[in-house]
Amino acid sequence: MPTVSGQMMQMPLSISSLIRHAARHAGDVEVVSRRVEGDLHRSTYAEVERRSRQVAQALARLGCELGERIGTLAWNGHRHLELFYGISGSGRVCHTVNPRLHADQIAWIINHAQDRVLFFDSTFLPLVEKLAPQLASVAHWVLMTARAQMPADSALKNLHCYEDLLAAEDGQWAWPEFDENTASGLCYTSGTTGMPKGVLYSHRSTVLHALGQVSVDAMGIGSRDVVLPVTPMFHVNAWGVPFAAPMVGAKLVLPGSRLDGASLHELMESERVTFTAGVPTVWLGLITHMKAHRLQFSTLRRTVIGGAACPPAMMRTLEDDFGLEVIHAWGMTETSPLGTLAHLKAKHAALDAESRRALQQKQGKVIYGVDLAIVDADDRPLPWDGCTPGQLLVRGQWVVDHYLGSSESPHIDLAGERWFPTGDVATIDADGYMQITDRSKDVIKSGGEWISSIVLENIAMAHPAVHEAAAIACHHPKWDERPLLVVVRKPGADVSAADLLRFFDGKVASWQVPDDVVFVDELPHTATGKLFKMALRQAYRDHRLPGV
Amino acid sequence: MPTVSGQMMQMPLSISSLIRHAARHAGDVEVVSRRVEGDLHRSTYAEVERRSRQVAQALARLGCELGERIGTLAWNGHRHLELFYGISGSGRVCHTVNPRLHADQIAWIINHAQDRVLFFDSTFLPLVEKLAPQLASVAHWVLMTARAQMPADSALKNLHCYEDLLAAEDGQWAWPEFDENTASGLCYTSGTTGMPKGVLYSHRSTVLHALGQVSVDAMGIGSRDVVLPVTPMFHVNAWGVPFAAPMVGAKLVLPGSRLDGASLHELMESERVTFTAGVPTVWLGLITHMKAHRLQFSTLRRTVIGGAACPPAMMRTLEDDFGLEVIHAWGMTETSPLGTLAHLKAKHAALDAESRRALQQKQGKVIYGVDLAIVDADDRPLPWDGCTPGQLLVRGQWVVDHYLGSSESPHIDLAGERWFPTGDVATIDADGYMQITDRSKDVIKSGGEWISSIVLENIAMAHPAVHEAAAIACHHPKWDERPLLVVVRKPGADVSAADLLRFFDGKVASWQVPDDVVFVDELPHTATGKLFKMALRQAYRDHRLPGV
Repeated sequence: MPTVSGQMMQMPLSISSLIRHAARHAGDVEVVSRRVEGDLHRSTYAEVERRSRQVAQALARLGCELGERIGTLAWNGHRHLELFYGISGSGRVCHTVNPRLHADQIAWIINHAQDRVLFFDSTFLPLVEKLAPQLASVAHWVLMTARAQMPADSALKNLHCYEDLLAAEDGQWAWPEFDENTASGLCYTSGTTGMPKGVLYSHRSTVLHALGQVSVDAMGIGSRDVVLPVTPMFHVNAWGVPFAAPMVGAKLVLPGSRLDGASLHELMESERVTFTAGVPTVWLGLITHMKAHRLQFSTLRRTVIGGAACPPAMMRTLEDDFGLEVIHAWGMTETSPLGTLAHLKAKHAALDAESRRALQQKQGKVIYGVDLAIVDADDRPLPWDGCTPGQLLVRGQWVVDHYLGSSESPHIDLAGERWFPTGDVATIDADGYMQITDRSKDVIKSGGEWISSIVLENIAMAHPAVHEAAAIACHHPKWDERPLLVVVRKPGADVSAADLLRFFDGKVASWQVPDDVVFVDELPHTATGKLFKMALRQAYRDHRLPGV
Repeated sequence: MPTVSGQMMQMPLSISSLIRHAARHAGDVEVVSRRVEGDLHRSTYAEVERRSRQVAQALARLGCELGERIGTLAWNGHRHLELFYGISGSGRVCHTVNPRLHADQIAWIINHAQDRVLFFDSTFLPLVEKLAPQLASVAHWVLMTARAQMPADSALKNLHCYEDLLAAEDGQWAWPEFDENTASGLCYTSGTTGMPKGVLYSHRSTVLHALGQVSVDAMGIGSRDVVLPVTPMFHVNAWGVPFAAPMVGAKLVLPGSRLDGASLHELMESERVTFTAGVPTVWLGLITHMKAHRLQFSTLRRTVIGGAACPPAMMRTLEDDFGLEVIHAWGMTETSPLGTLAHLKAKHAALDAESRRALQQKQGKVIYGVDLAIVDADDRPLPWDGCTPGQLLVRGQWVVDHYLGSSESPHIDLAGERWFPTGDVATIDADGYMQITDRSKDVIKSGGEWISSIVLENIAMAHPAVHEAAAIACHHPKWDERPLLVVVRKPGADVSAADLLRFFDGKVASWQVPDDVVFVDELPHTATGKLFKMALRQAYRDHRLPGV
């Protein structure tokens, strides 16, 4: 192999370089946050960078070693942004925990990650107080608020006030340089099996993802944009927007916990937002609110919709009634998350509206840095003809190699190259447009959150009266999907639907409990004895859930 | 330092990944070339990728080792593009030689680089035949044409036909994987001192440059664009466009040697070009032609102008008369070349036309990946106030570390970080907009080509009648700048302007010969005894050159 090296400067692709760039070249650009306290807080990239350095100093003062995981349970806000940079930029690992999970899952995840410090919004104080006794690795608890909002008393030992921690530091601290493959962030995917799995991002993967993300055929974010990530920062880092916006010096608007239609529309209008990204459920709330009050957008122009398939009617409404450019996207925690976006190509300029929409309804094409393949059951590549479905594989600069703490690689080898099996079934057409035809191993996507069917089935099967159970996705007008349990009772046993659903209380988050139970005599199986869920989904797709 | 690594896939940023991406995801997108043969040749990214693999196979068959330099003397065309990928993608170094240099410089550069094979367009056959005896390192000569256009006879031993070489290969060859810091390309800068210096790009620097380049605040190139790089591929790789276009799957139009206004306008219209990049001189020709024939652009929307300052009147004409978005840019061979672009920020939306134009006339702001500083004579940082000029320093992912074959580093250390001194003098304002106030060590920029004032002075000083000489830039309506020689004759000696200019014949390319000579009694000097060229430029800025 070649021995001649290029003679260009060597500098790591680092997360700190993003906020340093923003502070130097867009220092006065605003970061606006709806805080848990209720106020609208105004900061700038220069201030975020300074306070991120104070976060780094505070972490050192708390005794955090480099490489240690620091947990967050927080909404989208400026303090969470400061933590993103202060934690990762100083060589520690920012572990964003999803507060919407069941308390037991949260505890399991924090213990698995061995978080050393936990930062949390006041919303989550009761949750954290309850979990604290189970979280042996956590040495410090930091409430992300000012002194005046601190509780008079708390069960938490070593409870710190975020603003006090920062006030004790002078910011006289320089960003360190280290290998760009150093771990920077950690997200757990509840995925398709019961056990959450940790994806450990690196500085390099995060920066390359951001570079891909801002390109015209991805999110196309520039310095003149005002960007509002609706997607929570605990969902794959708000899809990377908190890294992309400072990279280009775009104003960043963080909506906090208020994701209802009225609050979002008001914030988008008052801050002159031009670009947003979120799941279909959020748009449902916005559309309902805007139609009821005959509202329009004065500055919003583009939105990326992902996390679940965007219903065709929603895309039409957003384009035709509200004048938005809607960009359908697909990705997963394991892909940082951007995989594909349904931008049209030059050759599609002449398409009629219907053909254009049909393409935009697909999950789209990759951007440089990611590649796709589809294979059959024997891992043989399948043709890109737009109609042959296959197991979807992905590889790329920001795709997971292996999960945290797992020695086994989930990868498939194709012609000497490693590919990550997504678990999704998809077609790819001759132009590279991918369309998912079956869900990743039957996961149920409720309002952008994934519910593991296996977790639900395992609970149901633990009930003494249950012989076999399948949890499948059932269409829901608001949540897109809700879980339905299809159950075979044990011979002679008896249990009602209501009793069985009560059995889930305290075992999963309340919104993860199935909406209904259908009792059957037997469940369909494949030749190899596995549950044949596709047949079940077809049979119960339009099952009328209670309350719908 | 941290010991925890992220667990994301590891794959090199490689030049081959760009053309592989284009072939897989935009395989039918066209690459259109105006060939030396005169015809308009139509290819696709799939075909360019396949033929690049054949180039790689042919190089192996010719006995080229990995890491060896392969020279090109060629216009912008599909074969040159195939060489870019076939040479670099296979682990060799693509050395683009500027055929506009004087033959002696070309020979010096090829010998310094130790090129092993030389590929050249038929335009340059007489030149190559003349130089061949001096080029000991070159083992093979490849004329970039088909068998029918090969000369019946040639002084060159081992003269190959490009199409024959490719036809002998089957393309059954897989792109190899190697370290991303491997050298990929080589460009010599004639720069500000007499001796050309080689900048050895790496795969990593080239790919990161392309990622930065396609972003909205740089060239903003997307898959729906049709891109025509007017800048020759021997000028810092046509500013990186041949890497950026495949990265996003944009149609590429390569104009060959025909850079006159009529040819360019016809090609832009017939191929529906939306984006172009070039030097001001090219625009002068286009504007003259279009005004004379009352033409407009039907598809062209944006242009990046760099290589020399864009005259304000030209920017106004392009914007007001031809409806283009003009993006003023600055860079150098040592910066790959993108350094800054004069995009406006969101805060400038409310500016009046005059203030907006004043900003756009600056060289602009950096994109992520590059940073700027200005320092005084003692290397102390100067304020970003828009009025304090200082020595311009640059650092970044695609900035040179040191020149080929040079052990000494040209860098300046600021707070532990290495910065490359550009030799330019500039101001930077509070928003990061850089403006060059003095030229890099007095280089003369004639039609986008740099003429070293030192080379001219050295020749003049070699004349027996010359005591001291200064070569300075003099304004020229077509070429932007042309060299003027200011000369002090030796006591008692006599020489006419015409005699002195004839003395340059054969020592530099004819277009590098000064346009005029002014004889003076003495030249101004600085306190340290150096020529004070700024004073000379001020005195002779509007000197009326012969023929103007």
